[in-house]
Amino acid sequence: MNFTIHARDSTTRARTGTVETPHGSYQTPVFMPVGTKAAVKTMAPGDLKAAGVEIILGNTYHLSLRPGDESVERLGGLHRFMAWDRPILTDSGGYQVFSLTKLRKISDEGVEFRSHIDGAKVFFSPERVLEIQRRLGSDIWMPLDEPSPYPCEKADVEKAALRTKKWWDRCRQPTDGRALFGIVQGAIFPDLRKQCVEQIAENDPPGFSIGGLSMGEPATVLHEITDLTAALLPDSKPRYLMGAGTPVDIVRAVMSGVDMFDCILPTRFGRTGWAFTSEGILKIRNKKYEFDEKPVDPACKCPCCLQFTRAYLRHCFRMNEIIGVRMLSIHNVSFYMELMRRIRQGIRDGRLEELLKEVEVTGPPLRGRLEG
Amino acid sequence: MNFTIHARDSTTRARTGTVETPHGSYQTPVFMPVGTKAAVKTMAPGDLKAAGVEIILGNTYHLSLRPGDESVERLGGLHRFMAWDRPILTDSGGYQVFSLTKLRKISDEGVEFRSHIDGAKVFFSPERVLEIQRRLGSDIWMPLDEPSPYPCEKADVEKAALRTKKWWDRCRQPTDGRALFGIVQGAIFPDLRKQCVEQIAENDPPGFSIGGLSMGEPATVLHEITDLTAALLPDSKPRYLMGAGTPVDIVRAVMSGVDMFDCILPTRFGRTGWAFTSEGILKIRNKKYEFDEKPVDPACKCPCCLQFTRAYLRHCFRMNEIIGVRMLSIHNVSFYMELMRRIRQGIRDGRLEELLKEVEVTGPPLRGRLEG
Repeated sequence: MNFTIHARDSTTRARTGTVETPHGSYQTPVFMPVGTKAAVKTMAPGDLKAAGVEIILGNTYHLSLRPGDESVERLGGLHRFMAWDRPILTDSGGYQVFSLTKLRKISDEGVEFRSHIDGAKVFFSPERVLEIQRRLGSDIWMPLDEPSPYPCEKADVEKAALRTKKWWDRCRQPTDGRALFGIVQGAIFPDLRKQCVEQIAENDPPGFSIGGLSMGEPATVLHEITDLTAALLPDSKPRYLMGAGTPVDIVRAVMSGVDMFDCILPTRFGRTGWAFTSEGILKIRNKKYEFDEKPVDPACKCPCCLQFTRAYLRHCFRMNEIIGVRMLSIHNVSFYMELMRRIRQGIRDGRLEELLKEVEVTGPPLRGRLEG
Repeated sequence: MNFTIHARDSTTRARTGTVETPHGSYQTPVFMPVGTKAAVKTMAPGDLKAAGVEIILGNTYHLSLRPGDESVERLGGLHRFMAWDRPILTDSGGYQVFSLTKLRKISDEGVEFRSHIDGAKVFFSPERVLEIQRRLGSDIWMPLDEPSPYPCEKADVEKAALRTKKWWDRCRQPTDGRALFGIVQGAIFPDLRKQCVEQIAENDPPGFSIGGLSMGEPATVLHEITDLTAALLPDSKPRYLMGAGTPVDIVRAVMSGVDMFDCILPTRFGRTGWAFTSEGILKIRNKKYEFDEKPVDPACKCPCCLQFTRAYLRHCFRMNEIIGVRMLSIHNVSFYMELMRRIRQGIRDGRLEELLKEVEVTGPPLRGRLEG
């Protein structure tokens, strides 16, 4: 893996560059749509490419259960299986496993849990998690980690961080151009974040993930911890903020020096009838769109906006016509891709602050508006 | 509407030609995928065009309830609403209304029924049904008719046929190039079929629909009644067999002189995990496809078969990933379109018999196999 920085913002830590992987390169800052079970929900590879997607995320936990990493390997790897020939990053499964609070048993060896599908007993060790990712054939791997919930006692976070460090020391970098990132935990405690960065950096990984955020903490905390953690990470390596976020989260984190993002927001919102637009979030089922002949976002040139009216999409959602969920997913992913293009341009032009102000008005999915 | 016959089979009544409509022309024999609620389920207009679809069917009954024919008219008509710029045929709603056996009240005036959605009282008269289709802006219209169920007493069929004739006499041909077909009822009774043809033909409509079949009768009865009815219809007008069928139904009916078909089979089968292939029907969830790296149909060049393996599609169906239902729908519609191309070529080459033998082996969705 190779990371080249092309331009920097003069007033923040933001930078734009290129990451090269065995399946081609992608430009940073980058957003990775989430393809949990070997599919970015409702979207075909062609839809993703048309939207400008350069890298997607796959879920180690889900894929190891169904269809199983051995099956995926036998079928030629995840790229061939899902007909996606561009880069894939896989997560560690840690986040999913530690969400199964009642079903897991953790030790320094690893974590034992029961499958959410059929209750079968499964064991994830640091080595096993890398084996899964090797079989999947993804380009960028994550090590097994223990994220702490929010809120959390500092003593528990310390214990989790120590365990994550022990697991990390058992990981070896993959060969043939694949890259294993280090994951920085430490929850919302600055001194623990610093300690984690130092521990992870010892092994000099090709990239750093900021884990343990987007766990329900307020946006200000997310931004603050991201900022102080990113500042501690080596400038020459890509930084990946796991699981965030909203357009505001993304622009702010870019200003803190983050290069990579993944989030279920655009696809989950699309499937549930919410559209990101240049004028704010829009709920397509709303009665007021019954006769609205405008596209979802008049400023957008995606296949959804070029073809369909709000009135038609509203009809499809009411009638459960699948074209509706697919088109809003396509639109939202296209919206995110356009946001990332504007971020990269904003870094080159020194106009990031302007963009931040814009998304602070239009971008954040405010809870009140989403439930309205 | 204009119908031109280009070639005829020398041993059967089969012919191939072109029908011109206000939204362009289509080649016959033609298959029309069903777009009940302003969408061919799971498929976008681009998917339909890529498959070679030249005309689709819309449902008058469903569209009049949701979003309503007035709404569709206000939104620029059905073509603009669903972003489909090629021809659309709409049915009369008769079939749907008469399926609501418990909810309807029929008289010479028309038929009163309760909406299957909210129980609201609705009245369809022959004039109302044409008004709906005018507002939808479809290219080919059907008149209100009363299909008889199968099986049915001859006396009841006679009564229904008489009423259909009275309704038909109240219909006027639309202007601006739209075409209102006549519908021939008469169930499985040859003398009633003949009587209906004569009554309908009096008004010299631009096309003839054969209604009241695909109502559960055996395939031999379907083929026999289609054959004798088609033989009675004027050679110069397109003949449309409503609601049939399987590949065998289609090839047989083409040999009887039928030019147009619609059926939910390819799309419904696709959504429920069944694929038509050159080697027979395939149930994609079957365990035996777990590691099958072949496309659904190795002889097919559709976007599904060019991209995905049986193993991947099986995974998508098991995981409820929407790309699975969409891809099998695309495949099945592509399969039907290829069948129609081969039928048209078969007419020109005198090889229809050969094609019939082939689909008799691979094509029919035998009940035993479908439930297996």
